[in-house]
Amino acid sequence: MSVKLVIALFTDFGARDPYVGLVKARLAEHAPAQQVVDLLHDVPDFNPHAGAHLLAALSDDFPPASVFLAVVDPGVGTPRDSVALLAGGRWFVGPDNGLLSIVAARHDDTRLWRISWLPETLSPTFHGRDLFALIAADIARGEFPSSKLSPTNRLNVEFDAGDLARVIYIDHYGNAWTGVRRVQLDARVSAAGKPFRHADSFGFVGKGEGFWFINSVGLLELAVNRGSAAATFGLKIGDPVQIQRLS
Amino acid sequence: MSVKLVIALFTDFGARDPYVGLVKARLAEHAPAQQVVDLLHDVPDFNPHAGAHLLAALSDDFPPASVFLAVVDPGVGTPRDSVALLAGGRWFVGPDNGLLSIVAARHDDTRLWRISWLPETLSPTFHGRDLFALIAADIARGEFPSSKLSPTNRLNVEFDAGDLARVIYIDHYGNAWTGVRRVQLDARVSAAGKPFRHADSFGFVGKGEGFWFINSVGLLELAVNRGSAAATFGLKIGDPVQIQRLS
Amino acid sequence: MSVKLVIALFTDFGARDPYVGLVKARLAEHAPAQQVVDLLHDVPDFNPHAGAHLLAALSDDFPPASVFLAVVDPGVGTPRDSVALLAGGRWFVGPDNGLLSIVAARHDDTRLWRISWLPETLSPTFHGRDLFALIAADIARGEFPSSKLSPTNRLNVEFDAGDLARVIYIDHYGNAWTGVRRVQLDARVSAAGKPFRHADSFGFVGKGEGFWFINSVGLLELAVNRGSAAATFGLKIGDPVQIQRLS
Repeated sequence: MSVKLVIALFTDFGARDPYVGLVKARLAEHAPAQQVVDLLHDVPDFNPHAGAHLLAALSDDFPPASVFLAVVDPGVGTPRDSVALLAGGRWFVGPDNGLLSIVAARHDDTRLWRISWLPETLSPTFHGRDLFALIAADIARGEFPSSKLSPTNRLNVEFDAGDLARVIYIDHYGNAWTGVRRVQLDARVSAAGKPFRHADSFGFVGKGEGFWFINSVGLLELAVNRGSAAATFGLKIGDPVQIQRLS
Repeated sequence: MSVKLVIALFTDFGARDPYVGLVKARLAEHAPAQQVVDLLHDVPDFNPHAGAHLLAALSDDFPPASVFLAVVDPGVGTPRDSVALLAGGRWFVGPDNGLLSIVAARHDDTRLWRISWLPETLSPTFHGRDLFALIAADIARGEFPSSKLSPTNRLNVEFDAGDLARVIYIDHYGNAWTGVRRVQLDARVSAAGKPFRHADSFGFVGKGEGFWFINSVGLLELAVNRGSAAATFGLKIGDPVQIQRLS
Repeated sequence: MSVKLVIALFTDFGARDPYVGLVKARLAEHAPAQQVVDLLHDVPDFNPHAGAHLLAALSDDFPPASVFLAVVDPGVGTPRDSVALLAGGRWFVGPDNGLLSIVAARHDDTRLWRISWLPETLSPTFHGRDLFALIAADIARGEFPSSKLSPTNRLNVEFDAGDLARVIYIDHYGNAWTGVRRVQLDARVSAAGKPFRHADSFGFVGKGEGFWFINSVGLLELAVNRGSAAATFGLKIGDPVQIQRLS
């Protein structure tokens, strides 16, 4: 069984809009043998900070040598830099606006390159298709594009790589993900002025009851059994979460 | 032309959330040569009953030997069983909570196995990724995982395999699918207190007019030409439909 | 690097419904080696006119010999014709209701065929799966289905192939696409009674400010930096846009 290299798409392009399809048309031309996986296209709009925490948690779950095309880029077309990086054995390509900074900081072996190349045609509003997809395709094909990249020592924009005690994602069930990792089960967690109890999973609390758990990518998540934590507690992206660690 | 085996995903994970991408990362590692098709990720949340009727109707439309990864699993992480089954020449893997019971009951050749294996890492909230995807991948690669399965004679949870005269799905147009099959065209159908006439397709009734038809997977569906039956008649998942068969 | 032929799906089937998965099951059987790309499944419902302008703009961005399965088909099941066509080196298959007429008119080399074949099983509400997918698969496999097609000189339904100065799509950010191409940067643009200034991209205007730009597929688009043009200005599909060309 030969493993097929994965190109994972992580964007705020929206799952219902044509942007993802346009990117995939480019990848079909430039990396036809690789497998493209839609990881997330609903990163909170215009929010590289939430996106950076999500990407760091989600990408750990992918096979070695996966290539992440990561684009949450409200500054597209303005003079912000773009970068490629290798961290934890996986590749990341995207804007230098902080989006890749947390995954970069959390690995010891991180190597960084600034993208110095410009394609012949570059839409000022769609570098995801015209620039990042082509660099990601080169890497995914195993043809590292040295001539298009310059090694660098640091990113221009770096977010704090520690935990973020805020809501960073709300899924369609209404579960609220936070940017907090490694919480002991005796911690006291509250949000929206209410305490949340711990449970391992949904079926261990009553219907409609709120609780917190460590989710499948290692983040503290607030949920309601068979209901929506966001609707029940009025939670939204950016809301603070209080965590009192007892051990 | 060699036929590529299909792994079909049927879940309530949501088309916009990262859960499907995390499952696909596992499938890319463990079944890299198979083709993954997103069948439905908006099975009504927490509703294995509606899901069971949808799965039975939709799966009949897939090629022989397709493998369905079917997960609507509000009890994930609690001590409910998980199963693999072969029915009508297709494979199904998922929780033993009724979701697979209708497809199992509607075929004569159904064979059942309880999943007795646990993976090294098992998130209490994401058996779809950590357990079901791996079993589905084994089967899809043609390496039946005998050591991970025990033959069994029956499911723990079985829904009535007859028709369900209720709304089981509402699509984005607002069309309301029911769990009713094989209705003669002279049947009298009503819902939300209103009679519906029969038409073969949308263009045979006036704009804004309601009607019923047998949809492309054999289920009775309520619709409005160029409009939303759900909005027009206030229909929602679980609403009863009255059917008076005249022949 | 061998290029894999792309089958692009362009429909109003909805990204969250099971219709796309049912089409892909057919394509997996009949064109297993080709790559299927979801271009857009949220073409405005029942609106072949907006769809025709979107398709003409979006398809230009795809590799030569791509095959478009294009279905926005409120008249499905009624006696409207279906067609296959080759335009600009790409293939298109769908209903003869105007949806393909703009891409046909905008290329000099367009060749048209009427689909004269009927499959054994044909759902009156889902020609996308039962008819168009099979024709598209034949073409994508390189086995042109001459016996299923009759050459023809013109489409039954033809929309004006010039620009359409109306909103034809609203994306999830709230950006409003129009059917207008090739506007000089000194043009005066207004919509919803408000003038819009030009900017190359989002980051060049203030947060919350409206502007217009030429988008990544060549269409004039109305947007708000880090906000929704649709919500800010009350824009919806079909709304007129005023363009005064000064040069």
